[in-house]
Amino acid sequence: MPDATLLDCFPTPSDTPFVIEHVNEEFTSVCPVTGHPDFGDIVVRFVPRAGKDGGVCVELKSLKLYFQSFRNEGIYYEAVTNAIRDDLVAAMGPVWLQVVTIWRGRGGIRSVVRATHGEVPGEWVAI
Amino acid sequence: MPDATLLDCFPTPSDTPFVIEHVNEEFTSVCPVTGHPDFGDIVVRFVPRAGKDGGVCVELKSLKLYFQSFRNEGIYYEAVTNAIRDDLVAAMGPVWLQVVTIWRGRGGIRSVVRATHGEVPGEWVAI
Amino acid sequence: MPDATLLDCFPTPSDTPFVIEHVNEEFTSVCPVTGHPDFGDIVVRFVPRAGKDGGVCVELKSLKLYFQSFRNEGIYYEAVTNAIRDDLVAAMGPVWLQVVTIWRGRGGIRSVVRATHGEVPGEWVAI
Amino acid sequence: MPDATLLDCFPTPSDTPFVIEHVNEEFTSVCPVTGHPDFGDIVVRFVPRAGKDGGVCVELKSLKLYFQSFRNEGIYYEAVTNAIRDDLVAAMGPVWLQVVTIWRGRGGIRSVVRATHGEVPGEWVAI
Amino acid sequence: MPDATLLDCFPTPSDTPFVIEHVNEEFTSVCPVTGHPDFGDIVVRFVPRAGKDGGVCVELKSLKLYFQSFRNEGIYYEAVTNAIRDDLVAAMGPVWLQVVTIWRGRGGIRSVVRATHGEVPGEWVAI
Amino acid sequence: MPDATLLDCFPTPSDTPFVIEHVNEEFTSVCPVTGHPDFGDIVVRFVPRAGKDGGVCVELKSLKLYFQSFRNEGIYYEAVTNAIRDDLVAAMGPVWLQVVTIWRGRGGIRSVVRATHGEVPGEWVAI
Amino acid sequence: MPDATLLDCFPTPSDTPFVIEHVNEEFTSVCPVTGHPDFGDIVVRFVPRAGKDGGVCVELKSLKLYFQSFRNEGIYYEAVTNAIRDDLVAAMGPVWLQVVTIWRGRGGIRSVVRATHGEVPGEWVAI
Amino acid sequence: MPDATLLDCFPTPSDTPFVIEHVNEEFTSVCPVTGHPDFGDIVVRFVPRAGKDGGVCVELKSLKLYFQSFRNEGIYYEAVTNAIRDDLVAAMGPVWLQVVTIWRGRGGIRSVVRATHGEVPGEWVAI
Amino acid sequence: MPDATLLDCFPTPSDTPFVIEHVNEEFTSVCPVTGHPDFGDIVVRFVPRAGKDGGVCVELKSLKLYFQSFRNEGIYYEAVTNAIRDDLVAAMGPVWLQVVTIWRGRGGIRSVVRATHGEVPGEWVAI
Amino acid sequence: MPDATLLDCFPTPSDTPFVIEHVNEEFTSVCPVTGHPDFGDIVVRFVPRAGKDGGVCVELKSLKLYFQSFRNEGIYYEAVTNAIRDDLVAAMGPVWLQVVTIWRGRGGIRSVVRATHGEVPGEWVAI
Repeated sequence: MPDATLLDCFPTPSDTPFVIEHVNEEFTSVCPVTGHPDFGDIVVRFVPRAGKDGGVCVELKSLKLYFQSFRNEGIYYEAVTNAIRDDLVAAMGPVWLQVVTIWRGRGGIRSVVRATHGEVPGEWVAI
Repeated sequence: MPDATLLDCFPTPSDTPFVIEHVNEEFTSVCPVTGHPDFGDIVVRFVPRAGKDGGVCVELKSLKLYFQSFRNEGIYYEAVTNAIRDDLVAAMGPVWLQVVTIWRGRGGIRSVVRATHGEVPGEWVAI
Repeated sequence: MPDATLLDCFPTPSDTPFVIEHVNEEFTSVCPVTGHPDFGDIVVRFVPRAGKDGGVCVELKSLKLYFQSFRNEGIYYEAVTNAIRDDLVAAMGPVWLQVVTIWRGRGGIRSVVRATHGEVPGEWVAI
Repeated sequence: MPDATLLDCFPTPSDTPFVIEHVNEEFTSVCPVTGHPDFGDIVVRFVPRAGKDGGVCVELKSLKLYFQSFRNEGIYYEAVTNAIRDDLVAAMGPVWLQVVTIWRGRGGIRSVVRATHGEVPGEWVAI
Repeated sequence: MPDATLLDCFPTPSDTPFVIEHVNEEFTSVCPVTGHPDFGDIVVRFVPRAGKDGGVCVELKSLKLYFQSFRNEGIYYEAVTNAIRDDLVAAMGPVWLQVVTIWRGRGGIRSVVRATHGEVPGEWVAI
Repeated sequence: MPDATLLDCFPTPSDTPFVIEHVNEEFTSVCPVTGHPDFGDIVVRFVPRAGKDGGVCVELKSLKLYFQSFRNEGIYYEAVTNAIRDDLVAAMGPVWLQVVTIWRGRGGIRSVVRATHGEVPGEWVAI
Repeated sequence: MPDATLLDCFPTPSDTPFVIEHVNEEFTSVCPVTGHPDFGDIVVRFVPRAGKDGGVCVELKSLKLYFQSFRNEGIYYEAVTNAIRDDLVAAMGPVWLQVVTIWRGRGGIRSVVRATHGEVPGEWVAI
Repeated sequence: MPDATLLDCFPTPSDTPFVIEHVNEEFTSVCPVTGHPDFGDIVVRFVPRAGKDGGVCVELKSLKLYFQSFRNEGIYYEAVTNAIRDDLVAAMGPVWLQVVTIWRGRGGIRSVVRATHGEVPGEWVAI
Repeated sequence: MPDATLLDCFPTPSDTPFVIEHVNEEFTSVCPVTGHPDFGDIVVRFVPRAGKDGGVCVELKSLKLYFQSFRNEGIYYEAVTNAIRDDLVAAMGPVWLQVVTIWRGRGGIRSVVRATHGEVPGEWVAI
Repeated sequence: MPDATLLDCFPTPSDTPFVIEHVNEEFTSVCPVTGHPDFGDIVVRFVPRAGKDGGVCVELKSLKLYFQSFRNEGIYYEAVTNAIRDDLVAAMGPVWLQVVTIWRGRGGIRSVVRATHGEVPGEWVAI
C-alpha cells in the first residue's frame, strides 16, 4: 500500500536554488480494473526550498522504498502520478516539483501522465 | 461500429491541472472507398477538468474497447480523427484535448491528421 | 498528363479546424529537358474549410490517381509543385495548404521546392 | 573555367512566392595555393521573382554544367561561394538567394561559407 | 474466415531456381482465448517449382486478400503460422517454403513462430 | 508463489516441426537475500512435439499468469530460470526448449542466465 | 516495353576475374493485375568473362536506358527479375550473374526476389 | 583490500548444465603506478557444477561486496582480471569460467583483459 | 592522364608479413560515354613483399598524386579498377593486393567494382 | 625520437594464458615526406608468457610515454606499426602480439596497417 511515511528528508545543503531529477525505471503497480501488473518509469524533478528557510530534499533510499510500496496496489496511472506529486510536495514543500510517469503499455496502448506543483523554474527552461 | 457508449470514466484524482497522453499503436479500421483495411497509431492528449468540479478521466481498458469498435467500420481518416475527438470531449468535457492519427500508408501515401478541442495548455508548451 | 479532374472530395467531417498531411513517397514524372525520369516525395498539408461552410477534403485514392497522372509528363520540379498546389486549392478551397516536393537527385543535385496558399495556421506552429 | 553563360533559365511557373533548394553533393574545384583538388557540397536556396513580373528559375541541367565548369579552376572557397551567388543573382534576379558551401576538409580543417542576396523570406522562417 | 481459395497463382516465369520473399507488415487476427485483436508481421519465403514442370508463384493481390481473410478469425499464433504454410504449399507445391510470424505482443509478451516445408536451399544460405 | 498449475496447453496444430519464441519484457520477482524487487526479460524458445503424437503448446494468457505468479516470490535468478525450464518441460514435453533470463541489474550488476532442454534444432541454427 | 537491344557492352578491361555490382534505386514498372505502378531497387552483380576470351561488360548508361524501358510495362516482380537476369546473361555471357529486386510494397506487402546464373564466385564469398 | 572471503555461494538449483553471466558496470580500483583511480566493467561468465555433485553458484550481493573490496587497492588491470578468475574458481569450482575486464581509459589508452578457466561450453557457442 | 610513374615506393620496413589498407574518399574521373564527372571511393589493400627480399610499399603522397592523375580522364569504372590494380602490382610486386572502387551513382545507379591480385592472406581472414 | 627504453614491464600475474588489449586513441607522429602531423589510433593485443616462465606484461604508463616519444618523429605509417610490434616483442617476448594502426587521413586518404607476431590464439578466435 502506498506509504508516504517511508519518505525521509535531509536539509537542503544550499541557499541557492538548484534542480534535482530522479528517474526510477523499475516502477510497478497493479491495474485496478483488470488486476494485471502495470510497469513504468517515474521521473521526479524539483527545486527544494533553501536550507536557510528550513528546506529539505528527499533521501534516495527512502524514495526507493516509497516507490516499492505501490507494488501490489490497485491504482490508476493518473492517481499514481498525483499521489507521488502530493506526497512529495507534503514531505518537502518544494519551490517546484514535477512528476512524469511513462507506462509501458497494456492492450496496445502506451501512456504518459504529467503533474506539476508550482511554476516551472526559469532555470529548468533556460538550461 | 464505433461505439462511444463503451467509454467509461473515473473521477479526476486531483484538483491541480495535469496532462495525460495515450498512444494506441494497434488501431485498424476499413477504407470506405476500397474496402481494404487501414492501420494507424492514435495519439490522445488531454487536461481533464479538476476533480472538485466533477471532472473525469477516460478509463484505459474502456478506451481500448472503444478503439476496437472501429475495426470493421468503413470510415475516412479525417472522420476517425474527428469522431475520437468529439466522443472523448463528450465523455470527459476536458479543458484541452488533442487527437493525432498517424496512418501507415495505402497506395504509397502516408497520412497524419490532427484535431484539437480547447486551448493548448501552457504546461504542454513550457515543459 | 496531369489531370485535376481525377481529384474527388468528400464533405469535411467537422466544423472545428483541423490539419491533414499526406506524404506520397512514390512520385515520378519526366524531366522536360533530358527526357529522363524524376523521382521524389510529395508532402501536402492543409486545413480544410469547415463542413458547415461547405468545406471538403480530398479523397485519398483519387489523390493517388492524380499523382500517377504525372507519370509520363515532361515537367519541371517547380511546375509540379505549383500545379499540385493550384489544383488542390481549386478542388478544396482550403483555409491553408502547403506543398513540399523533395527530389532524389539528378546529375548529383538534390532539390526541394515549397509552395503555399494562405496563412500558416497557429495550430501547426503551436503544436 | 567558371562559365556563367552556361546558366539557362525558364519562366517562373507561378505568381505566388515559393522557395526552391538545390543541393550539389559532387562539387570539386582546385586549391589556388597548393594545386590540390577541393571537394564540397553546394546548397543554393532562392525565391524567384513572380512569373507575371518576368521572373525566371535556373534550369537544373544547366546548373549542373555551370557547377562542372569550376572543376579545374584554382579558386578559394570564399570566391567559389560569392561567384555562385553573383552569377545566379545576375541570371535570375531573384527576390532572395542564399549559397552555402560545405567543404570536406584539407589538412584536417573542414570549412563552411555562406553568402546571401536579399532578405530571408518569412516563409522560410515560419514553415 | 481464412479462405485459401482466394489464392491465385501464375506460371513460374523461369526454369532456373530463384527465391521470393513477401513481407506483410499489416496482419491482424483475433485471440481465440480473449477475443482481443492480435497484430503481427508475416514473412513468406519460397523457391517455386520450375515453369517447365508446371510450377506456379502466388499472385500478390490474391495473397493480400488471403491474409485479410484472417481479420476476424479467432486463431492461435501457432495455427496461423501452420495454416499459411499449409495453404501456400497446397497452392504452389514449392520446392521450399518458410513462414515466420512476428507478433507485436499481448499482455507484455512478444512472440515469433517459424514453420518450414522442404530443405533450405543452398542459394538462400550462400548468397 | 510460482504456480505451474496455471499453465494451460492446446494441441500442437501441425505434425511438421516448427519453432516458437515468447519474450516477456515485464517479469518481476523478489531477491531472496535483500527483499528488493528484481526486474527482467524472460525468453522462452521451443519445438513442440507433433500434434499426431499428442504434442501440446503452452497457451499465451496462461503463460502470462504463470509468469505473474513469481511477482512476490523471493527467489534467485538461477532458480527462476531453472524453474521455468522445468515447469514448461513438464507441461509440454517439448522436443527442445530454452530459457534465457536477462536481469536489469541490482547493485550495479546486470545478469543473464540460460538453461536448455534437449538438442538445439537444426532449424534454429540454419534459418 | 522492356528492350534488351538497348544494352551496350564494352570489352572486359582485364584478363583477371573481378566482380562488378550495379544498384539502381529508381526502378519502376506497372502491376499487371491492378495497373498501379510498382517501385523498387534492382541489384545486379556479375563476374565478366576475361577480355582475352572476348568477354564484355555492360555499359552503364545503356543499362539505365534498359531499366527505363520497363517503366510502362505491366509485369510481375518475378518476371522482371528473371527477364533482367536472362537479358544480361544473353548480352554478356558472364561467368556469374545475380539479380536481386527489392520492392517497396503494395497493399502492405514488401517483396524481394533473387535469381542467379552460374556459381557464386569464391572471390565474392571470401572477400 | 580484495577479500575473497566475502564471496558467498548457494547450491546450484539444477543438475542440467546452464550458463550464467554477471556484468558489473561500476568497478573501480587504483593504479599501482600513479595512484589514480581506474574505472571499468567486469564481465563474469560461468557454467556451475551440477547441484547433485555439490555444485554452487556465487550469490549476487556477496559478489557486489567482493567487487567493492578492490576500491582502494593499488593493482594492475591484469592482476585484477586474474584475481577475480582465481577467487571465483576457488569459491565455486565451476565447469567453465571467463572474466573480461573492460577499462575506460587512462592517459588516452583504453584496455581489455580476458582470462578463462576450463573449456568454452558448446552451449555458449551454439546458442 | 593516369600516370603510374607518379608512384613512389619505399623499402618495406619489416620482414614479417603485414597488411596495409588505404581508403581514398575523394576520387574523381570522367565518364567516357557522357563526359560527365564520376565520383567514388577507392580502397586499396595489400601485403608487401618482405624488406629482406627487396619488397617495397607505395608512399602515400605519391599515391594521392597518382589518384589525382585520373581527374580529367574519360575512363570506365571497370578500367579504373583494373588500372589501379595493375599499376600498383607493377610498382610494388606485392604478395597480395585488392582494389575496391565504390561509385556514388549516375543516372540513379550506384556501382562497386572489385579486383584482386594473389591469394587473400590468412591474416586478413583470421584477424 | 621513438624510445623503446621507456617501456617498463611487470611480471605476468598468472600462469594461465590470457589476452590483453590496449587502445590508444591519441597517437600522433609526423609525415616524413611533407612534415605535416599524422593522427591515429593504435591497437595492441597480446598473450604474455606465463609468470612461472618469467613472462612479463607492459606497464600502462610506460606504454603511454613510449607512444608519446613518436610525437616529433618523421616516420611512415608502416614503420610506426612495425616499430611498435618489434619494440613490444623485444620488451615482453609474448606468445602472440598484434598491432593495428588506424590513421585519420591525409590528402583525403585514410589508412590502416596491421602487423602480427606469433599465431592468433584459439582463445581470441573462439570467445
